[in-house]
Amino acid sequence: MPAAASAPLLFTPASAPQTLKPRSLLPFQTLITRHSVSLWVPPHPRLARGISVRAAVAIEKETPENERPESFLRAADDPFSSASAVLPSVRARFERMIREAQDEVCAAIEAADGGGRFKEDVWSRSGGGGGISRVLQDGGVWEKAGVNVSVVYGVMPPEAYRAAKGEPGAGGGDSSVKAGPVPFFAAGISSVLHPKNPFAPTLHFNYRYFETDAPKDAPGAPRQWWFGGGTDLTPAYIFEEDVKHFHMIQKQACDKFDPSFYPRFKKWCDDYFFIKHRGERRGLGGIFFDDLNDYDQEMLLAFSTECTKSVVAAYIPIIERRKDLPFTEQHKAWQQLRRGRYVEFNLVYDRGTTFGLKTGGRIESILVSLPLTARWEYDHQPEEGSEEWKLLDACINPKEWI
Amino acid sequence: MPAAASAPLLFTPASAPQTLKPRSLLPFQTLITRHSVSLWVPPHPRLARGISVRAAVAIEKETPENERPESFLRAADDPFSSASAVLPSVRARFERMIREAQDEVCAAIEAADGGGRFKEDVWSRSGGGGGISRVLQDGGVWEKAGVNVSVVYGVMPPEAYRAAKGEPGAGGGDSSVKAGPVPFFAAGISSVLHPKNPFAPTLHFNYRYFETDAPKDAPGAPRQWWFGGGTDLTPAYIFEEDVKHFHMIQKQACDKFDPSFYPRFKKWCDDYFFIKHRGERRGLGGIFFDDLNDYDQEMLLAFSTECTKSVVAAYIPIIERRKDLPFTEQHKAWQQLRRGRYVEFNLVYDRGTTFGLKTGGRIESILVSLPLTARWEYDHQPEEGSEEWKLLDACINPKEWI
Repeated sequence: MPAAASAPLLFTPASAPQTLKPRSLLPFQTLITRHSVSLWVPPHPRLARGISVRAAVAIEKETPENERPESFLRAADDPFSSASAVLPSVRARFERMIREAQDEVCAAIEAADGGGRFKEDVWSRSGGGGGISRVLQDGGVWEKAGVNVSVVYGVMPPEAYRAAKGEPGAGGGDSSVKAGPVPFFAAGISSVLHPKNPFAPTLHFNYRYFETDAPKDAPGAPRQWWFGGGTDLTPAYIFEEDVKHFHMIQKQACDKFDPSFYPRFKKWCDDYFFIKHRGERRGLGGIFFDDLNDYDQEMLLAFSTECTKSVVAAYIPIIERRKDLPFTEQHKAWQQLRRGRYVEFNLVYDRGTTFGLKTGGRIESILVSLPLTARWEYDHQPEEGSEEWKLLDACINPKEWI
Repeated sequence: MPAAASAPLLFTPASAPQTLKPRSLLPFQTLITRHSVSLWVPPHPRLARGISVRAAVAIEKETPENERPESFLRAADDPFSSASAVLPSVRARFERMIREAQDEVCAAIEAADGGGRFKEDVWSRSGGGGGISRVLQDGGVWEKAGVNVSVVYGVMPPEAYRAAKGEPGAGGGDSSVKAGPVPFFAAGISSVLHPKNPFAPTLHFNYRYFETDAPKDAPGAPRQWWFGGGTDLTPAYIFEEDVKHFHMIQKQACDKFDPSFYPRFKKWCDDYFFIKHRGERRGLGGIFFDDLNDYDQEMLLAFSTECTKSVVAAYIPIIERRKDLPFTEQHKAWQQLRRGRYVEFNLVYDRGTTFGLKTGGRIESILVSLPLTARWEYDHQPEEGSEEWKLLDACINPKEWI
């Protein structure tokens, strides 16, 4: 891709109001428009409910930076731009939160790893936004650990915005009133941590904030916001105390805000990380939520912050218990097979990954979620009652751990 | 999936005549119809040209068989059913050809491998059709070698058939004349051979025959046929004499039939095995063709046979030269990285794989194409001018080898 590639984005409404999966809605097409805007669009199921969305996206190549900027927000995004503001904007506070979380998690990982150090890549896009990718590879404890933050400015078509808001007519129909494209802002932290020891589990977490903006020349234009995210655990072997501990921390974070959160987001997680062609989940779940905007915005910012800040407490104690357990080649081979399932889920189903691949996001940041090594054996069947079978059974039949 | 699951199939035309990629057209949906027919549908780009096709497919679970049947054809498919036939049907001859080729390739692989033996799984579906999967794993020379044949009977909707034939109005429009679903037949051989030695290349080949049938109660119903297939080479290191030899065998097979075939199918292969998000091809190509029906049917059957029968001559001499070359850990790691790219192509782009995963095909047969082991390093960049760099360069900029 040439460095100066322009970056068009197009969503077009289609007439078939089926509940298509987002990944199937976003083929990489050569349909090019004159909106020469940047773009990454967060995978957003709401956008898919009422309309078919097709993106023709070729985004600008990111520019490597030598230093981390104070903020990736556009200069116009002054945290105190609103005259009445007593707090910085949610954008500004969310970015600060994820950047602090990145530092905190990376420090905890390095401390537990003993020898490995994160390699950092900072990048920006000329239209605003950018990111920091940090990867620790082949460390003392972790095979591959990636912790990324990114801030994206983009534009979505009005139909997608109306569908996202659930407004009638979003799926096409009468479009006599021409609305303009809707700018949006997205920021998120995303991390996958793959340890070496087959008894030490993989952790994934991702928290993101999405906001549509008022176009410059349309002061009354729509404005909306959403939160999404989750934290989930993927062991190759089950240690009940580990899984209970992990889920308990998630529940505690949830319960501080709403008693319905944990059961709802636990089930959402089990449903999301489903490898359909295998009939099994990627791992033992945790919490997952998306499109969340039907609560107070400050409450959801605090909730996302709580979840993000719970990662170290949820994960590091498990690693400390398992990182030095002795294991056999058979244990390692089973872990590698489960890593293969991880690859299958991420490349075939994960919205962020599949969308990122199709839209020209930073490939190395997107695929840092893949394990260093993975394995596919033909027709492998764990012996019934074995430890491997127990893990597989829990992936096929999700359990209540607490 | 319950063993007795019914197997509905639905294609629905949509109004947006975009050149969608087949994989994006075929989401796994829960939309269920009352056509309780079997099904696997071969990935068929023609079907996608004029219409959007959505499949709601949940196919019957295959039944393991203890013995290989003489033929997987339905009993009604008597090879001499036509009174004027002097030759068995193309279906019958194609099935015989791919079954002979499976035996021949497997025998050559076992002989070259020295120690490994193929494990065989035979399966059938109650509505007709079935397959033979053969896998050699962790042998002397090959890490994983799969050679599968399958025969499938299915039904496609009339719109898909009309689109496939390129008839006007296929994309919807006036559908006042209700046509019935069109039965089809598909048979193919598919193989991926991954050696252990990083200097010995991976080979893939696949040849298939597709035919629509006259429905029982509609004697004048449409009838059409197509051939597709290809053979391609994926080394981790370039030995020019190997690549030239491989391409020369493909060219010789092509030239026996039409001088335009090799240049056309060589380019088609370079275009097909493209990993878009990397901007590079999976390997060094070979030949690939699809939808071929604008030549004499007997000629194309003979051409497909010639290509299939050329596999051993194209591949085994290369293996003999490379299988025992000494190598370092660095060579092995690079091979593993390229295996990771193989996984990326197959899970993200390969039509047969992505369609098979979404439609409930036999998962172990579909994913036998994945290597035993693969690797993903963050932001790996081969040193300019190195052997690894030369391979990557040839994957980014396809070359004329002969």
